[in-house]
Amino acid sequence: MRIAALQMRAAAGDPVANLARIERAAGEAAAAGAAVLVAPELAVTGYGAGEAIRALAEGADGPLVDRLAAIAAGAGIAIVCGIAERVGEDVYNSALLVDGSGRQLVYRKSHLYGPYERGLFRPGQPAAATADLGGLKVGLLICYDVEFPENVRRLAQAGVDLVIVPTALPATDDGAFIAEKMIAVRAFENQLFIAYVNHCGGDERFAYAGLSTIVAPDGTVLAGAEAADEALLVADIDPDAFAASRAANTYLDDLRT
Amino acid sequence: MRIAALQMRAAAGDPVANLARIERAAGEAAAAGAAVLVAPELAVTGYGAGEAIRALAEGADGPLVDRLAAIAAGAGIAIVCGIAERVGEDVYNSALLVDGSGRQLVYRKSHLYGPYERGLFRPGQPAAATADLGGLKVGLLICYDVEFPENVRRLAQAGVDLVIVPTALPATDDGAFIAEKMIAVRAFENQLFIAYVNHCGGDERFAYAGLSTIVAPDGTVLAGAEAADEALLVADIDPDAFAASRAANTYLDDLRT
Repeated sequence: MRIAALQMRAAAGDPVANLARIERAAGEAAAAGAAVLVAPELAVTGYGAGEAIRALAEGADGPLVDRLAAIAAGAGIAIVCGIAERVGEDVYNSALLVDGSGRQLVYRKSHLYGPYERGLFRPGQPAAATADLGGLKVGLLICYDVEFPENVRRLAQAGVDLVIVPTALPATDDGAFIAEKMIAVRAFENQLFIAYVNHCGGDERFAYAGLSTIVAPDGTVLAGAEAADEALLVADIDPDAFAASRAANTYLDDLRT
Repeated sequence: MRIAALQMRAAAGDPVANLARIERAAGEAAAAGAAVLVAPELAVTGYGAGEAIRALAEGADGPLVDRLAAIAAGAGIAIVCGIAERVGEDVYNSALLVDGSGRQLVYRKSHLYGPYERGLFRPGQPAAATADLGGLKVGLLICYDVEFPENVRRLAQAGVDLVIVPTALPATDDGAFIAEKMIAVRAFENQLFIAYVNHCGGDERFAYAGLSTIVAPDGTVLAGAEAADEALLVADIDPDAFAASRAANTYLDDLRT
């Protein structure tokens, strides 16, 4: 399965502009043969929009899903995208998998990062959110979630081939370490693929690291973006091509507790 | 606390030679102000000695401990060293912490690697083996153990500042990935120090990666060896110097299960 990842300079608080950007990328990704396009954490509202995010939040069965499904149907591609999800008075930092038929999966970020997120969102329960996509089993996490090995292990033990991670990683030394080393180690220690898809540029609150990356089970980088600019990464997710790595690194079989 | 790590070209099946090598390094390490010297996995027998390892195995209260304690007393330093430990008919792949007063801690490798080790050793139960050393809380793991995030997390949650890991990492692409990326990520995701101490050179069964490394809680390398040659690494383990990293990366507090 071919995957495309949009490293995106989102407009804070402007869903119309961000959905237009995602629609353009969906067309490009489909033209490149991708079965799914991934956009960053809270890509629809922008990550740094503060209280506006709560005001813009919608239910995961609302008009936003219809709009994303229409984009997906128009391009002939699935879309994974970060959204602010409203459930009554609560708002979750969620990731949505939609295709032309509508919503296929919602995951609510379980590990909120810092006072900014904890002031805006309710955390989801840690759980394996998985779906079948293009013949593979995919799982969703969001940003800080993937920094905890327990969360990726849970998906690996559920049989996931590919973990899709919309993120909003800041432009710091720690951020570069996470993008350039930790993501590859998470893939290697579980022998699965990870697509880690970040913002670039900045808004009034944050500067983002870019450095989006798609890594293979052996820790190699299949596609990687630079720090500064928007990019559309494309990579083929082919578990059979890494059968030798999986046979040599049998962590899931060998783990003892 | 200052730590020294001996990247060692062990003689397979020759404990006399290997103990002499450790004794020389203990003197050099003490002269450099180190409070502890670390030697690789199965440093006393050599890692690749095969069935000879079982024949050379001793109890962790036997003459080998007396000999290591005498070396430690002579140099005025503690020693962590990989040994083949006999318990009745069973042999464990163990790591020993001794000082001039004798044995302080024994850890039995819980995650044996591949048919070679599984043919020679019985696995220990996964558990947090910890001791106080130079004002710090240290924990022991051996080689493959550290590749499982669960094993390092267990020590971190027991309050360990420094994980000491004698290893016998092979000279492969995967080995380089583990030494150069995974060890730093294990340190970062738990905000602790790791000393990962390997063999170099080879024997009739294996070629070793070298690349021993001592890493800090922020993932930086405090001291690192090249691939090919013996080396005595020295680094200061000072948790207070990384208080900012610990305050910024609160994984242990934020983990939800």
